[in-house]
Amino acid sequence: MTASDLEQTRREQELTERVVASFAECPDPRLRLIMQSLTRHLHAFLRDVRLTEEEWQTAIDFVTAVGHITDDRRQEFILLSDVLGASMQTVTVNNEACGDATEATVFGPFFVEDAPEVAIGEDISGGAAGEPCWVEGTVADTDGNPVPGARIEVWEADEDGFYDVQYDDKRVAARAHLFTNAQGRYAFWGLRPTPYPIPHDGPVGRMLDKVGRSPMRASHLHFMVSAEGYRKLVTHIFVRGDELLDSDTVFGVRPSLVKDFATQAPNAPTPDGRDVSNGAWSRVRFDIRLAPQRTEFEIADQ
Amino acid sequence: MTASDLEQTRREQELTERVVASFAECPDPRLRLIMQSLTRHLHAFLRDVRLTEEEWQTAIDFVTAVGHITDDRRQEFILLSDVLGASMQTVTVNNEACGDATEATVFGPFFVEDAPEVAIGEDISGGAAGEPCWVEGTVADTDGNPVPGARIEVWEADEDGFYDVQYDDKRVAARAHLFTNAQGRYAFWGLRPTPYPIPHDGPVGRMLDKVGRSPMRASHLHFMVSAEGYRKLVTHIFVRGDELLDSDTVFGVRPSLVKDFATQAPNAPTPDGRDVSNGAWSRVRFDIRLAPQRTEFEIADQ
Repeated sequence: MTASDLEQTRREQELTERVVASFAECPDPRLRLIMQSLTRHLHAFLRDVRLTEEEWQTAIDFVTAVGHITDDRRQEFILLSDVLGASMQTVTVNNEACGDATEATVFGPFFVEDAPEVAIGEDISGGAAGEPCWVEGTVADTDGNPVPGARIEVWEADEDGFYDVQYDDKRVAARAHLFTNAQGRYAFWGLRPTPYPIPHDGPVGRMLDKVGRSPMRASHLHFMVSAEGYRKLVTHIFVRGDELLDSDTVFGVRPSLVKDFATQAPNAPTPDGRDVSNGAWSRVRFDIRLAPQRTEFEIADQ
Repeated sequence: MTASDLEQTRREQELTERVVASFAECPDPRLRLIMQSLTRHLHAFLRDVRLTEEEWQTAIDFVTAVGHITDDRRQEFILLSDVLGASMQTVTVNNEACGDATEATVFGPFFVEDAPEVAIGEDISGGAAGEPCWVEGTVADTDGNPVPGARIEVWEADEDGFYDVQYDDKRVAARAHLFTNAQGRYAFWGLRPTPYPIPHDGPVGRMLDKVGRSPMRASHLHFMVSAEGYRKLVTHIFVRGDELLDSDTVFGVRPSLVKDFATQAPNAPTPDGRDVSNGAWSRVRFDIRLAPQRTEFEIADQ
């Protein structure tokens, strides 16, 4: 190393330390920790890649475009967080592994409060098009004890890849909530999930195109499960065999969440005797394990 | 470490690697390197601070607000880059130390092309208010050989802390360009610099307030120096004794750029016999050393 190289390293390090020190008087210790860590990682990135001034300008133009397309209906910054895996990493960090508790995944933008209640075995589709799918399973704790009365919210896209809220007619379809019975069991008729792209006509979509990535999400069915005394679980199940499992653009897939959506023989009898009009249907089993609610002590101890 | 702790670490690491791998097919190797490094540093930050989902939402809301205030006249993302030291770190990385070459600092938003030319010794103020300041020095290479004909752009705020372009009347003031003479010398009448805040009525200003930082920049005078065969130098000089030197909100200060702006005795004779109307003036010397232009080989070798 030459004297100039050593001096260069000293200047870069000294600058980072000066920025870190500028947050020393932050009255909120948590905010101070976050800003100081952000500074260190941001500077390490700039130094590692030796970002050029032209590339810095490209980055400024990119986030400016992300800001300008974002409005009340379109949140391009969340898309950006999603495609960088930052949303999924945040979910992962906040839903720590706990025995065989079911893994969490991204929440997504399509959940709606107050979806209709259905009884066990009823149909959630509300007229949404798609192949009927019998979904059943149990909700239990991590020791295997059934959890009765757990509230299960489910929502999914129709066979064209659209959620009800993406249509202009205010329909409510392919979403509902139901409760487990005394044995912790649940079942409903839904739709076999289909793949769809995230909105990709904006700067995030152009970035995905430039780096050679697809905007597609793997086919999935959303679940949110809550019960007193347990950590709320937000997750999906995915379709085994879906060719998008390895390239889900928001990185939501976990192997433990990939399930067999078994296509049934034409006109095979349905579990509840329902007459499936054109004869095609499938079924899937998803047994859920809920982690115990973390205590205040455990949260503070993180 | 419990089995769940190990599993948690495995999940977080595996996710980061999956996101890194998603850029593997990027056809542009430089973009691939940048996106993969960004992913690693971003995920390391999220894991280090264990960012909560609420904090993630706060961050999304913050960058959304930064995006919404940004328009053709206001660039809040650049302000954000500035106050995190990212602009200065990019400048540092791109202007590597080279012997005793003068250090670079941030460019800032107030440079204007085609500022008027002045002869050596002339006044650049164009009527801008402030204490007259005689600025003189030499431009030389890193071996001390004078550089004749170097182009020097200078620009600065008036005594109220405003650049000409911040007024609505299209004035051109306190900015000019001049050239070094055959001995590499230059001199001009400017204004003694005064401190001013960056725009702080937006989300970046609110963030600075929350973390207990000032929006003020230390007093400075901008220089941009170019000559055939040398690396273009963008820098400032700062005023020794300015109480803001240690808290410049964009981290532009380098000790080597702090100069003595010597206040002169009332009615002390001026270098060129100019009659300073109210008698108060100061002077400063700034000798500039230019690094050689980097060769294509050196640039490619970085």
